[in-house]
Amino acid sequence: MSDARVVVAGASGFAGALAASLVHRHPRLELAAATARADAGARLDRLYPRYRVPVELTELDPESAGEYDAAIVAYPHGAAAEVVARFVEAGVPVVDVSADFRLHDRALYEDTYGEHPSPELLDDAVYGLTELHRDQVRGARLVANPGCYPTAAILALAPLAAAGLAQDVVISAASGVSGAGRGGGDRLHFVAVDENFAPYGVDGHRHLPEILQELEELGEEPRTPPPPQPASPADRSPSAPWEQRRRRVTFVPHLVPLDQGLMTSCFVSAAREVDAAELRRLYAERYGDEPFIEVVDHPPGVRDVRDTNLCRIHVAVDAPTGRAMAFAAIDNLWKGAAGQAIQNLNLMLGFEETEGLL
Amino acid sequence: MSDARVVVAGASGFAGALAASLVHRHPRLELAAATARADAGARLDRLYPRYRVPVELTELDPESAGEYDAAIVAYPHGAAAEVVARFVEAGVPVVDVSADFRLHDRALYEDTYGEHPSPELLDDAVYGLTELHRDQVRGARLVANPGCYPTAAILALAPLAAAGLAQDVVISAASGVSGAGRGGGDRLHFVAVDENFAPYGVDGHRHLPEILQELEELGEEPRTPPPPQPASPADRSPSAPWEQRRRRVTFVPHLVPLDQGLMTSCFVSAAREVDAAELRRLYAERYGDEPFIEVVDHPPGVRDVRDTNLCRIHVAVDAPTGRAMAFAAIDNLWKGAAGQAIQNLNLMLGFEETEGLL
Amino acid sequence: MSDARVVVAGASGFAGALAASLVHRHPRLELAAATARADAGARLDRLYPRYRVPVELTELDPESAGEYDAAIVAYPHGAAAEVVARFVEAGVPVVDVSADFRLHDRALYEDTYGEHPSPELLDDAVYGLTELHRDQVRGARLVANPGCYPTAAILALAPLAAAGLAQDVVISAASGVSGAGRGGGDRLHFVAVDENFAPYGVDGHRHLPEILQELEELGEEPRTPPPPQPASPADRSPSAPWEQRRRRVTFVPHLVPLDQGLMTSCFVSAAREVDAAELRRLYAERYGDEPFIEVVDHPPGVRDVRDTNLCRIHVAVDAPTGRAMAFAAIDNLWKGAAGQAIQNLNLMLGFEETEGLL
Amino acid sequence: MSDARVVVAGASGFAGALAASLVHRHPRLELAAATARADAGARLDRLYPRYRVPVELTELDPESAGEYDAAIVAYPHGAAAEVVARFVEAGVPVVDVSADFRLHDRALYEDTYGEHPSPELLDDAVYGLTELHRDQVRGARLVANPGCYPTAAILALAPLAAAGLAQDVVISAASGVSGAGRGGGDRLHFVAVDENFAPYGVDGHRHLPEILQELEELGEEPRTPPPPQPASPADRSPSAPWEQRRRRVTFVPHLVPLDQGLMTSCFVSAAREVDAAELRRLYAERYGDEPFIEVVDHPPGVRDVRDTNLCRIHVAVDAPTGRAMAFAAIDNLWKGAAGQAIQNLNLMLGFEETEGLL
Repeated sequence: MSDARVVVAGASGFAGALAASLVHRHPRLELAAATARADAGARLDRLYPRYRVPVELTELDPESAGEYDAAIVAYPHGAAAEVVARFVEAGVPVVDVSADFRLHDRALYEDTYGEHPSPELLDDAVYGLTELHRDQVRGARLVANPGCYPTAAILALAPLAAAGLAQDVVISAASGVSGAGRGGGDRLHFVAVDENFAPYGVDGHRHLPEILQELEELGEEPRTPPPPQPASPADRSPSAPWEQRRRRVTFVPHLVPLDQGLMTSCFVSAAREVDAAELRRLYAERYGDEPFIEVVDHPPGVRDVRDTNLCRIHVAVDAPTGRAMAFAAIDNLWKGAAGQAIQNLNLMLGFEETEGLL
Repeated sequence: MSDARVVVAGASGFAGALAASLVHRHPRLELAAATARADAGARLDRLYPRYRVPVELTELDPESAGEYDAAIVAYPHGAAAEVVARFVEAGVPVVDVSADFRLHDRALYEDTYGEHPSPELLDDAVYGLTELHRDQVRGARLVANPGCYPTAAILALAPLAAAGLAQDVVISAASGVSGAGRGGGDRLHFVAVDENFAPYGVDGHRHLPEILQELEELGEEPRTPPPPQPASPADRSPSAPWEQRRRRVTFVPHLVPLDQGLMTSCFVSAAREVDAAELRRLYAERYGDEPFIEVVDHPPGVRDVRDTNLCRIHVAVDAPTGRAMAFAAIDNLWKGAAGQAIQNLNLMLGFEETEGLL
Repeated sequence: MSDARVVVAGASGFAGALAASLVHRHPRLELAAATARADAGARLDRLYPRYRVPVELTELDPESAGEYDAAIVAYPHGAAAEVVARFVEAGVPVVDVSADFRLHDRALYEDTYGEHPSPELLDDAVYGLTELHRDQVRGARLVANPGCYPTAAILALAPLAAAGLAQDVVISAASGVSGAGRGGGDRLHFVAVDENFAPYGVDGHRHLPEILQELEELGEEPRTPPPPQPASPADRSPSAPWEQRRRRVTFVPHLVPLDQGLMTSCFVSAAREVDAAELRRLYAERYGDEPFIEVVDHPPGVRDVRDTNLCRIHVAVDAPTGRAMAFAAIDNLWKGAAGQAIQNLNLMLGFEETEGLL
Repeated sequence: MSDARVVVAGASGFAGALAASLVHRHPRLELAAATARADAGARLDRLYPRYRVPVELTELDPESAGEYDAAIVAYPHGAAAEVVARFVEAGVPVVDVSADFRLHDRALYEDTYGEHPSPELLDDAVYGLTELHRDQVRGARLVANPGCYPTAAILALAPLAAAGLAQDVVISAASGVSGAGRGGGDRLHFVAVDENFAPYGVDGHRHLPEILQELEELGEEPRTPPPPQPASPADRSPSAPWEQRRRRVTFVPHLVPLDQGLMTSCFVSAAREVDAAELRRLYAERYGDEPFIEVVDHPPGVRDVRDTNLCRIHVAVDAPTGRAMAFAAIDNLWKGAAGQAIQNLNLMLGFEETEGLL
């Protein structure tokens, strides 16, 4: 069988460039085009020498969407939806690395990110945390690739949530600087980050709704659909059920002076006692066959997973309090973005899930 | 008045060397001797060029303890107590930077660190978190300088604890590598730490009992003495009251790839609703006049306090859950060790608390 | 005597902010104003928390130049000259941290930086490498503060140059990222610099002419004035004497993943044999009494001088080749910029040279 | 054809562990054993999680040397020779990553490293800088893998040396910390290296003789054998021809705060004028077909080659002085050690040179 011809739209950002590189070296995929907006005309291997992709970035031609076998869109949120829609209309399977199709609930999206450019596609999108939604990803035309923090947090918590044990959760997370993207100005200047460590997004980080959506879904069998919500946030009641349900997860990220790597340290108070043996059993059962998840008997470090698509997890019980603790490390650009995009694309195109990722 | 002649015992470690440097440049103190065990004979300005203390490290002469006006002991725990005892016997005021006299409860110490070499001094020791015990420090002959994590964690939580609002606490902390000391072998090799971020001490860190001791004390008015405990841990019941009381604080530290800096991110579930205005008021009231505490309206970074004796704190309410959050940044070698030692010594010797520290 | 009221113009950049902080804490200076262009209105202690200067940045009012006792100008080259001229006209002593008045030769300036905005002041400017031109600085109204690389390189080489021994020189230099300033875009993003080390400016760095100017001057007794040059570069002959003289120094800088610190490693082929004893004697003679120069018997590291105004130098002979080698470490923001500016200002105002810098 | 069974002796050090990992994932090699001395019994994937080699380190059984198809020895110098000899005696092709067989001249080895344990093998050893000695490596039974600095320095200079243009050379080099190995004590503690940059080995680095040996050989056609030397250094004259010839290369390394990466910045005074076009032509001719060498038109950074076996080179002429400059970046653990070992092993075993390395 011949290779699938893939376009990576938005290949000049950190996630897009890695996606282009993963497509380029993938045994079953061909990098048919790598596009960029401001950087069109530049060579990708000049912007990102490490990836050694000897192609010139071009402008995306919306008319030619149908010429590809698949697309990865790595635009900023808001800008992605329109491009994604073009590919969907042309019948091209697409993985969207942006946030635009991650939230099932349009109102929640608009609370978080502003007006949604293509709400009609929300129902078609599959949330691409592969380990949770593998079967849906296989048949999907549009996969919304999860955010980096949600990937690690949900994988850290899924076995507890599915067992109904994630009643009260604190997620203290930390990410390397590549997670903040190529822009960022003064805030990401070397001198601002070096020898620093600081929380941010303390008054509400955009990744929380994703985490809640998935933990809710895991915990409900069958899932209770959220009640209809007025389109305008102002019209909605602060006491809506959604608001009640989300009152159990606190999420605070920190910026760490390193390039690639993300850790979620999760502290969980369950309604009943959980011991270490049960925890280990829960995680072994859920993740025992997963090719990209390592459950280990000691705390992981982000170095352990750099430049891999792996998620490395350790679970323990905090003896004095009885809290369950789950620590998950990923590479934010791989499993947290481009790696997982390829993992999803592999499934969508009928390849081995691990193809090109080991 | 002439300067006080100070000996720093254990001046070849990170905290001891900074203490020697702070004494050396202090307008009211004279560095009468800087001692070391393995490094005796070396020059301090060769081991630590940055500090520019042009003295030779000598061996500590136990017979000469009485020749000094004050002592700072920066030995490892276990080894410190004996040296401290010698100074106390000689009537020399001493700040012990080790853990040996931090815990009031001997049994708890021995559970945590092993047999106590000088238990008879435990009752004389003042826990030197200056902002909490300033009056006791003033009159003390022996001050137990707090650990680095406890300093930041307790300062972050004290206003909540004193208001009876620290019912359930998660402390997710992170420290630069100097906090782990000069030894450490492979674990602290540059290559092990660089581009890494990892939790450690997940099955119980030695600094937790200090944190609990102080939070308990803050929350109890008047303080309920812990019930008498049998001397041997084996004889004690696991259901002792202490065990019950400590069941509310989870503490997990992480190692960050930087030199000096420590952050405690504290997540607090209170028994009743607390809003941001009340939080700000609580912290302003307690810390408004403190020379070394900055309460700021945005998250602090450890860079903000490097090479200072400051603790920079931000408090907020996590809107979705109602949790109170307190973030405190210190320099682990300054406010977390040598700086606070000088702060305490200033009080013990009748100087201005900030002398030599601004 | 009352304090001198100092304005720091351009206090929102790295060098200007440190200059403002050094003025603010200086026992004899008062920070009368800290000005900025884009950041006017912001608080300096919000932009640079470490410096703890609780003032608001204002716009510079050219009409009020005469209200100050002294000025430090930390504008980019080209933009500085006009502001400097205003202060000079108002009779206010000024230290210019930019490159605008460092080169005595206007044509050389214009070759390097473009048209000079205020060439009429070039003759009044003293090149403020304090250790070389202390007496001129004392009486100066306008001091051109040296660049960071030239400061270290010239201090490393001055004893050799003065002895007529710097015939052929390779300067391989390395600087932390703060040396590149607050702008810089993608090139200074944390991710671009982290885990990287690279030469730059390989086809000619702007700091070379400064280095040449001073080494020439040191080596010539009395100094031979450069021949008159036509004003326009196009009119000048490529075989002009200047071109001949500069043919002996190669200077290549590298960017290192750290914040503050600069190293110049200098390799010198002399016309005659030089041994280590002679080297040590030359450096001891020239620098023995210098308060900010440390000549040490082992290679310095940039950590040794961070946050100080010191230059730490080691000289050695490369046995196989007989080359003299001189290694000089400074903090690029201190001795390489703001610290030396204060050192010069102290002299200009008749204070102790070291005031506020120890 | 079945895989070659390879033993990696000394797999617990940085280079050995990477070698074991490269063997493990190589399509034609099988990791038959990974041995260690102090760490025998530990799992390699616990010591080096990133490499994901799920094997237990064993003790080397000298009796079983003949059971393998090939060996990579990554012992410290001095300790390696004996193990290497065992494999050679057993007829097993071996790549020695240590320094023990790099120098053809026994006396020079002993001047540099001390007594040679197996001098009888020196004549059999091929210096494994693959690009220079590819044909000899193909037929070799014992390949001495080059040091990390020599690999980059010689590749940077080879085209100039072969053209007789490397008369006078300054090599200012910089390496990440993994190049210093797993030991190192205080000197490689994170806190000693972080935010530091310093020259070292200023009074003579062990890698210089390798560099000289190869540059000499490149420049001599045919090669003049060094005159016979007395076995004892004391008997040899300081004016021996070797001493004369080496008087043209100065080599000084620096330590950079990063993990993997090495840069050699070479400054070359040639006997005649060389222009940029000639330089580019020389390098294109020599390296145009090399699979692991990239000649680029701008200065390389060590980030560009991390985790690859590539050497990235830029050449330029310093206009003011006419010096040729060559900058070469490698990953010290890959092309500077384990990667090149596999490159050599591929040739020795008749595989494609790039197998398992792209």
